[in-house]
Amino acid sequence: MIKIRRRLTEDEKFMRAAIKEAEKAGAIGEVPIGCVIVKDGKIIARGYNKRKKEGNTLSHAEIKAIDKACKKTGDWRLEGCSMYVTLEPCPMCAGALVQARIDRVYIGCMNPKAGCAGSVLDMFSVEGFNHQVECVKGILGDECSEMLKNFFKDLRKRLKEEKKASEI
Amino acid sequence: MIKIRRRLTEDEKFMRAAIKEAEKAGAIGEVPIGCVIVKDGKIIARGYNKRKKEGNTLSHAEIKAIDKACKKTGDWRLEGCSMYVTLEPCPMCAGALVQARIDRVYIGCMNPKAGCAGSVLDMFSVEGFNHQVECVKGILGDECSEMLKNFFKDLRKRLKEEKKASEI
Repeated sequence: MIKIRRRLTEDEKFMRAAIKEAEKAGAIGEVPIGCVIVKDGKIIARGYNKRKKEGNTLSHAEIKAIDKACKKTGDWRLEGCSMYVTLEPCPMCAGALVQARIDRVYIGCMNPKAGCAGSVLDMFSVEGFNHQVECVKGILGDECSEMLKNFFKDLRKRLKEEKKASEI
Repeated sequence: MIKIRRRLTEDEKFMRAAIKEAEKAGAIGEVPIGCVIVKDGKIIARGYNKRKKEGNTLSHAEIKAIDKACKKTGDWRLEGCSMYVTLEPCPMCAGALVQARIDRVYIGCMNPKAGCAGSVLDMFSVEGFNHQVECVKGILGDECSEMLKNFFKDLRKRLKEEKKASEI
């Protein structure tokens, strides 16, 4: 039998790389969120969530990747760069994308509780800022969403088992 | 003659420490912005702007100080902490204050072009977020504002002189 595999679009290819980063976070017990920064068709920085492990507000995937991209390019302006991120950015990360003057952000799934690409605020198209970030939503959205749902399902199950064990 | 000096309020004392940080930035040719983070009446972290020197989007005073405070406390939550900052925070830094769950921010002067404590956006009192930051404005405001005005005045003068020299 010949398996027919649909060729990934470039956006899906980069979002898959972001998902791979998110999986690294999940593997160490962190909420699985990951991202990559792309310039001239190449990944120049990757990041995944390490907030709990590092005990640091700034250890979000996007901030990690922006830090690496700046160190690589030696420039605080990431003009000509795009970010692919599995979850809609929080206020800090959305603000960092604006400050870094990133051209475009590709988002996997939305975050109704804290997302700043339209869910709670839309920080990417504020005319008062000196930069706006183009925003594309729903790249491999179901996959990104499932990954998070499974993580929280497993977490709840584990916490329930631990609670049960502590009561014996 | 006896000089009578008005006793500084606690807020002014901490804002003065933030101004001292801002002056460090000015001394290395960076826009003079500084801040301190206070917990239980003591400064636990300081930061000043190094964006140009380090070529990094994240090198704002507030991000530097949040990083240090998290490393010191080992916690990504900076509950029970206040920040004193000479200039109204940008979207990234305002978002970081929300994410860090900082109790209160004391602001020197406002930033009509990018400030997110009411100037362009008000990110500190968004009900949709799971944390709101109490905000006190105008602590040593004139002094903070003068410091920035003088910096840009000197910068324009220097650039004019350099241009003149290059035309000879």
